[in-house]
Amino acid sequence: MTAAPSAPFLAACRCEPVAHTPVWFMRQAGRSLPEYRALKGDRSILEVLTEPELAAEITLQPVRRYRVDAAILFSDIIVPVWATGFGVEIVAGRGPVVEHRFSGPADLSRLGRLDPETDTGYVLDTVRILARELPAEVPLIGFAGAPFTVASYLVEGGPSRDFARVKGLMHRDPATWEALVDRLAELAIDSLAAQVAAGADAVQLFDSWVGALSPRDYERFALPATRRVLEAIGALRVPTILFGVGTGELLGLMASAGPSVVGVDWRVPLDAARARVGGLAVQGNLDPGACLGPFEAVANEARDVLRRAGTEPGHVFNLGHGVLPETDPGVLGALVDLVHAEGRAGRVQ
Amino acid sequence: MTAAPSAPFLAACRCEPVAHTPVWFMRQAGRSLPEYRALKGDRSILEVLTEPELAAEITLQPVRRYRVDAAILFSDIIVPVWATGFGVEIVAGRGPVVEHRFSGPADLSRLGRLDPETDTGYVLDTVRILARELPAEVPLIGFAGAPFTVASYLVEGGPSRDFARVKGLMHRDPATWEALVDRLAELAIDSLAAQVAAGADAVQLFDSWVGALSPRDYERFALPATRRVLEAIGALRVPTILFGVGTGELLGLMASAGPSVVGVDWRVPLDAARARVGGLAVQGNLDPGACLGPFEAVANEARDVLRRAGTEPGHVFNLGHGVLPETDPGVLGALVDLVHAEGRAGRVQ
Repeated sequence: MTAAPSAPFLAACRCEPVAHTPVWFMRQAGRSLPEYRALKGDRSILEVLTEPELAAEITLQPVRRYRVDAAILFSDIIVPVWATGFGVEIVAGRGPVVEHRFSGPADLSRLGRLDPETDTGYVLDTVRILARELPAEVPLIGFAGAPFTVASYLVEGGPSRDFARVKGLMHRDPATWEALVDRLAELAIDSLAAQVAAGADAVQLFDSWVGALSPRDYERFALPATRRVLEAIGALRVPTILFGVGTGELLGLMASAGPSVVGVDWRVPLDAARARVGGLAVQGNLDPGACLGPFEAVANEARDVLRRAGTEPGHVFNLGHGVLPETDPGVLGALVDLVHAEGRAGRVQ
Repeated sequence: MTAAPSAPFLAACRCEPVAHTPVWFMRQAGRSLPEYRALKGDRSILEVLTEPELAAEITLQPVRRYRVDAAILFSDIIVPVWATGFGVEIVAGRGPVVEHRFSGPADLSRLGRLDPETDTGYVLDTVRILARELPAEVPLIGFAGAPFTVASYLVEGGPSRDFARVKGLMHRDPATWEALVDRLAELAIDSLAAQVAAGADAVQLFDSWVGALSPRDYERFALPATRRVLEAIGALRVPTILFGVGTGELLGLMASAGPSVVGVDWRVPLDAARARVGGLAVQGNLDPGACLGPFEAVANEARDVLRRAGTEPGHVFNLGHGVLPETDPGVLGALVDLVHAEGRAGRVQ
């Protein structure tokens, strides 16, 4: 931990008063920024994120441009799995694609244990550079994929709309499913603990696709492994954020998994979300698609989010999912200013 | 209308008592059935659905095999748009793909008015064959795509994960968006009214992807055109079903659009869904992914749906979305028997 404990982002995660509502954007670094496209050139994502100086610079670009209240490590949720030898590539515009799908118990042996320093030293070196270079009031967020979402890539072989293979495996062979998510929980714990040791001030667990599950299936097939990760990292005394999309009916269960903060997409009005997560902090929840409109429309939507966030402490402003590549960076810059000026949740004054 | 008004499906749509809980499955006809694959051979979907004898036979296959309580016309939501000359093809395993995307006001003129008999006579001939051949207790459901969902294919050019182009158009040029969904509402009304005149006993409006919208955006950009369609068809005195996935937070607004029945995916427990739609009937809500497991697991999930449906009239059992191609037809057959034996909502005895 290297950021000031009073940094607005960290205070909001702990549901403490803030000087202003903190704001950052999922995928604030990357394709929407011209300075990113210039720096990346023709290199692949995996090439870029294994070069600590480059990955750190890309992480810093949106902090400079937008004056956001947190930086998020430039990396990918598939890195620990890839680094331990499960064949994966990241296909531009599509996402992680797996060479040989995980299809049954025989594939469990393909998932090795992670030695973070040996296998992913470039990630930790990036964290160390950032811990040194970031201003004290801008904490660094480390991250990992949650067991369900990483498993979904391994089992489906890539992005999916219906998660048919995942659900088939869960329901036909629950023992293998549980062994799979247990191994992925270990990978996430080892990776996140190493990121925290190297200087990350908070972590986000991306369970992006878990909203594909019914509450019953979430409770049985995703929650236990998620809870294991959050308990292990929570014990390191850094804030933890649990995020997914399409999770309206899961928010209470997600809160019970033990994060400090629950991420909320744009489908659920933020006041309803706050009620569903009990006393926990929330992060969100502007529609990234709304940010493709003119700033006047974006400002209306953002003000609705801020109004629904209320005045109680514990709101980190963010989009409900990642910045879309088509987004005008000028709109996001103006949005940061609006949130800083008008946010009221937990504001001291 | 040719089915008996006392048919369990029609009675449940009207929230009246039933002899047994009616059940049918979205995509009950099609790729999961060996008799469909044998009949279709190498022909394209569009070839098959423009042949009334073939389309009628495919519609009847699951009625014979499963003894479901309703038949749904074998067709596609893109047919009226395609039939009026907007270049679209249906790519197997992917869905509708548009040759030249709708990108602005100049494209409005590409959407002609539908003359159902001239442009889609094969659809109406299929309905007429089915009205003659179906048993009186098995009503025929006609259907159309809701304006938002059809617009999403035209604007995105095909299936989408983030609906970035749709949301960009809505927020940047709301007047063009509204003109687009108005034309698509007219197409849906003309197509559905003709299907009803030819003998359809009920209609379903598929707004499959509308769950991508926040409640605010749904109310502004999707609800008005949807309401127009439902009011026009409701005046014909046939039950109307409004369906979408990921719509947990939209159910109350969807109920306000004026359908007889609201379709509910598997993300929302059915008791919560019934509370959100007020006194309307509901249709759903077993996860199609759960049907890939052994029947014992499917039976557990189905009993949970039936328990949450309660005892008040107004439940049509269905999956929360279409049958997945990998589904074992034997599982669906056993599921029909279970629902008939154990369903309690509105049951007379």
